Amino acid sequence: MTDRKPPISGEDSLIARYFRPLATDPGAFNLGDDAAVLKASGDDLVVTTDAIVEGVHFLPEDPPDTVARKALRVNLSDLAAKGATPAGFVLTLALRDADDAWLTSFARGLRSDADLFGCPLLGGDTVSTPGPLMISITALGRVPAGKMVHRSGARPGDRVVVTGTIGDATLGLDILRGGAAAVVVDTAAKSMLIGRYRVPQPRSALANAVRDHAHAAMDVSDGLAGDLAKLCEASGVSAVIDAPSIPLSTAAATLLARGTIGIEALVSGGDDYEILCAIPEAGFEAFAEAARAAAVAVTAIGTVIADAPAPRFLDGEGREIALKRLSYSHF
Amino acid sequence: MTDRKPPISGEDSLIARYFRPLATDPGAFNLGDDAAVLKASGDDLVVTTDAIVEGVHFLPEDPPDTVARKALRVNLSDLAAKGATPAGFVLTLALRDADDAWLTSFARGLRSDADLFGCPLLGGDTVSTPGPLMISITALGRVPAGKMVHRSGARPGDRVVVTGTIGDATLGLDILRGGAAAVVVDTAAKSMLIGRYRVPQPRSALANAVRDHAHAAMDVSDGLAGDLAKLCEASGVSAVIDAPSIPLSTAAATLLARGTIGIEALVSGGDDYEILCAIPEAGFEAFAEAARAAAVAVTAIGTVIADAPAPRFLDGEGREIALKRLSYSHF
Repeated sequence: MTDRKPPISGEDSLIARYFRPLATDPGAFNLGDDAAVLKASGDDLVVTTDAIVEGVHFLPEDPPDTVARKALRVNLSDLAAKGATPAGFVLTLALRDADDAWLTSFARGLRSDADLFGCPLLGGDTVSTPGPLMISITALGRVPAGKMVHRSGARPGDRVVVTGTIGDATLGLDILRGGAAAVVVDTAAKSMLIGRYRVPQPRSALANAVRDHAHAAMDVSDGLAGDLAKLCEASGVSAVIDAPSIPLSTAAATLLARGTIGIEALVSGGDDYEILCAIPEAGFEAFAEAARAAAVAVTAIGTVIADAPAPRFLDGEGREIALKRLSYSHF
Repeated sequence: MTDRKPPISGEDSLIARYFRPLATDPGAFNLGDDAAVLKASGDDLVVTTDAIVEGVHFLPEDPPDTVARKALRVNLSDLAAKGATPAGFVLTLALRDADDAWLTSFARGLRSDADLFGCPLLGGDTVSTPGPLMISITALGRVPAGKMVHRSGARPGDRVVVTGTIGDATLGLDILRGGAAAVVVDTAAKSMLIGRYRVPQPRSALANAVRDHAHAAMDVSDGLAGDLAKLCEASGVSAVIDAPSIPLSTAAATLLARGTIGIEALVSGGDDYEILCAIPEAGFEAFAEAARAAAVAVTAIGTVIADAPAPRFLDGEGREIALKRLSYSHF
């Protein structure tokens, strides 16, 4: 009898070839069904979604594996800041064409991070677009019931804490665009800054410590100043930030010291994907200890105060730094 | 003292203005946090994601409220076919600009369907794009543990059943593109067919009956022939379909009778968003009764057989209809 096996469409074969190997969770059904299943665990499910667009969030010449990793990591960063453990993600990929080299690299990057962060691909949709590439990811995580950490909850007297360093990604983007930083820093620093733009480091290792100790938390995606303002507004508080305490990489500190870049650009540039949180004074040492154990640098940069909403950034002499722009906005 | 309220970015104000009213679920936190929470219920969580792109899945001149409704409904259709009850959705909206009239209409359509189907907005991301509009939705639903209905599971002897009518949406698209159907049918029929393309009808009312009775199910999104082939392949079976039994609207039946359109176009056109399922013979009457109670038309169109995978479509004289194209594929 004749072979009646149905012709596999390009779309199905694309999914099978590049993405099925990532669908390691039994609830993904090898991407062979119309939906995935997350088993009930008694935990609350935390849901977040973030999209990245070519020419807006990443550059057309960025390596595809870094594009994939950024798309997943910006979502993992949200989960970490909410105190959640990754459970899995779904992917929408809008492509102009099915370019084998691009997809191979993209899938490799995605797989590497899905494994690294224990966040398997659960499902997705691949669509064609005549426009820029776009990757939209919805990530799902778990927290014990009622334990998601909110933007609201910061209280006067809490320490304002950030992880890692601030401003590197915006410098990396400046370098990729041939800006001033490109001329000044050396090759190793350039490479580090570009890496921070292309492949953010979600602070997943700190999720439990944030859940145990933070009154409020969010990830810094649009700029420290703007995101702090959002956290303060949600909490009905304000904050005073000691700008010289803001943790900077050596490269960023050098550029700041030389006047190549101002502090405003560093705190409003965005793409940091560090955790910003409010830690009660009494819990700070325990939090710092947990952060050391998780090998994540944390720095206290100021104090939550009861006041009108907009936080103030003070310079080394206690003078307020005027910030014209707080963060990146799409519209 | 001076007003320190932070300037609200265009993006935040857009979300607050258009989408906060849709975030009626307490777990959405009024869209004021970085993630949403779905409380544990003991049910399995069903996750599905589908995107629609301007010029690919909808037309630039489609009314924005129908674009929103289609974006949500294609996902609700997946949940229904899996036997799941909607729990909520997250939205990624890629826009060229923040046009008030477009957004007002889009949000109104989205809200109306979120209310109608009991599927509240949980969160989202709004990004700018220089390219076509794109709406990506991840919908979450619940089923009792282990009860999601799969593509696999159809058994020889099962009846192949579809809901509603097949082929209307592809005719609606043909009309919008000025194809042959546009010349032939009257205004009321045109309007009905266009409506079926723009605003599919997810068979949410049938979800429980599918869960109670179907061995396998999926929604028909890419074309009945291709989707049936997928269901058969996943189940390791084949099927024989009696083409004259395929339920058609009066408009589609008229166009078919006149030879304006062939059966192949109707069964491979896609965008039907009907449920295709395999119902055991012994359960068919109970399923049909549940469908009547839910006011959803169901039609048995053939039989599952143990055979090589590709299903056959037979005409009124029992001759096989050759289908060159089974369904729509993006690549």
